[in-house]
Amino acid sequence: MFFQRPADARFDVVGLGNAVVDVIAPAPTEVVVDAGLALGAMTLVDADRSDQLYARMGQGVEMSGGSCANSMAAIAAMGGAAAFIGRVRDDQFGRIFVHDCRAAGVTFANEPVTEGAPTARCLVFVHPDSQRSMATYLGACVELGPKDLQPALIADAAVTFLEGYLYDRAPAKAACLEAAKLAHARGRKVALSLSDPFCVDRWRAEFRELIDAHVDLLFANEAEITSLFEVESFDEALQAVRGTVEIAALTRGPKGSVLLAGDEVHVIDAAKVERVVDTTGAGDLYAAGLIRGLTEGLDLAASGRLAALAAGQIIQQYGTRAETPLAPLVSEAERSRGALRA
Amino acid sequence: MFFQRPADARFDVVGLGNAVVDVIAPAPTEVVVDAGLALGAMTLVDADRSDQLYARMGQGVEMSGGSCANSMAAIAAMGGAAAFIGRVRDDQFGRIFVHDCRAAGVTFANEPVTEGAPTARCLVFVHPDSQRSMATYLGACVELGPKDLQPALIADAAVTFLEGYLYDRAPAKAACLEAAKLAHARGRKVALSLSDPFCVDRWRAEFRELIDAHVDLLFANEAEITSLFEVESFDEALQAVRGTVEIAALTRGPKGSVLLAGDEVHVIDAAKVERVVDTTGAGDLYAAGLIRGLTEGLDLAASGRLAALAAGQIIQQYGTRAETPLAPLVSEAERSRGALRA
Repeated sequence: MFFQRPADARFDVVGLGNAVVDVIAPAPTEVVVDAGLALGAMTLVDADRSDQLYARMGQGVEMSGGSCANSMAAIAAMGGAAAFIGRVRDDQFGRIFVHDCRAAGVTFANEPVTEGAPTARCLVFVHPDSQRSMATYLGACVELGPKDLQPALIADAAVTFLEGYLYDRAPAKAACLEAAKLAHARGRKVALSLSDPFCVDRWRAEFRELIDAHVDLLFANEAEITSLFEVESFDEALQAVRGTVEIAALTRGPKGSVLLAGDEVHVIDAAKVERVVDTTGAGDLYAAGLIRGLTEGLDLAASGRLAALAAGQIIQQYGTRAETPLAPLVSEAERSRGALRA
Repeated sequence: MFFQRPADARFDVVGLGNAVVDVIAPAPTEVVVDAGLALGAMTLVDADRSDQLYARMGQGVEMSGGSCANSMAAIAAMGGAAAFIGRVRDDQFGRIFVHDCRAAGVTFANEPVTEGAPTARCLVFVHPDSQRSMATYLGACVELGPKDLQPALIADAAVTFLEGYLYDRAPAKAACLEAAKLAHARGRKVALSLSDPFCVDRWRAEFRELIDAHVDLLFANEAEITSLFEVESFDEALQAVRGTVEIAALTRGPKGSVLLAGDEVHVIDAAKVERVVDTTGAGDLYAAGLIRGLTEGLDLAASGRLAALAAGQIIQQYGTRAETPLAPLVSEAERSRGALRA
């Protein structure tokens, strides 16, 4: 496969994303609706609004988060070589974020900045049905831009992975384009996760340009891919995305996922799950599993199964950083053919 | 019972303690032993050493902690009226701590300070046998002293609860004495938890003076009470403590606890527990259950059963702030007579 890590790349993947610490607490959906947040999605908020929302939240737990960083931590946990490019302040949350990256085995090369806004935080409201709504205060991430890129890391990674959330800020958007160009100039691959349907809605045209020009591997869930192409059904979206990228990975929650690569199509079942606790991070871990499988040299179907297993594991716990080992999933995905953990 | 909240007290209890955010991660015991920390106990460390130890820790989870504050949060969760006196900086950990107190329903009256050391943090290494070792950097707590006391709150609470950890700093020790005097001047009760066997060893004489002069309700585990009286066996310690305080609550982990009050003696079984995950907070929740029972007007045995149930619940999860409701335990303790949840 073309995504397998070549001998001259030290890393399987380098991620570019918002460096965020999550504040997680259970919350009825009313709290989120009353506060005017988008249910089941991510809403950007400023510092004051973040404080107001936090005051309405129950007793919480704090954990490193950030969509792309979650994927990098999971790839490292599955034995991959991962790096992360992002921006934190030298504050308590910044130290947590950097520590958790490194403790997970992810190379975090950017020095924490010594002035400006504090490290980003995301309030994660986990609802009784295990869905989550998020309010993100971007803080130090607001200034993430091309200057923060680590061209040597990008050159040294088989895949450069971008999170769609970055498009909400102009300098970060520029950094995405620049990173994609750097990667392609070195013959590397570029992956993009669309992150959130509202984010797609805000930046549809720009995302389509980026995808057409620079994306080899695209991750999107049903809401994101239908929004991207402004179509009504998953099947229409599937037809629309076909041929635009080398591999498209379209996820549908408990309905599983579809992988498209040229004429190849795989329909992958969701992993069997005992009890869903918190769906936060399902997409991040799915992306991690697929990238880990592809860079390891697994075929597309086995990589998809690894993606499904990783996603299935993270939704059985609170938060997005795995408390249980992910490494055994790699061989499990290789072995399995049909239903996962049936 | 004498500890029942009188009509002229707005609070069941006000706690004085170190305001700490916990950083929790699983760790083999070797990590702790190699680092020279006391296994199963709390070691005080400075900022640099805390950073060094943190660097050896795995990916973590952050949660509000602090022994006395844990008890206050649990008392509020069981429907009691609780307040907390403590010292945090106006930093990210300080905001988490104050938020989690208030979200739990605990009145936190001290304004975060705007200068000096950062909010305290405690590295909690959870071992494979579910025991934990802790390294605490006291930060802003170092300056906790008599000036931080809230005399009106103390006057307004049936019980003033002190944590033994405060004795490691002279100003906090002075605050304990002052708080006890304020409470007794208003005809209120004073409770003390001995916190840690090494802490008892460091301040044995001072603790015995405090207990003789000011403590009505004493909490100690087996290691702490034998250290306090420098005796070999639990039974010797039991004879030694008899008559020194109105109520002595002596805990023994899975062996249950013994309550002494004058001629009254109760031997309380530990709660039946499905799976022990992390023993951090067992003592804090035990103290919470007993105080909640007594201030509610339950008899000593039922209060002891509530204490055992609360401790049993917290050791089945990570961290010291309950993720599951504690309120149902109150009626469960009233109903039960023999084995708990048999």
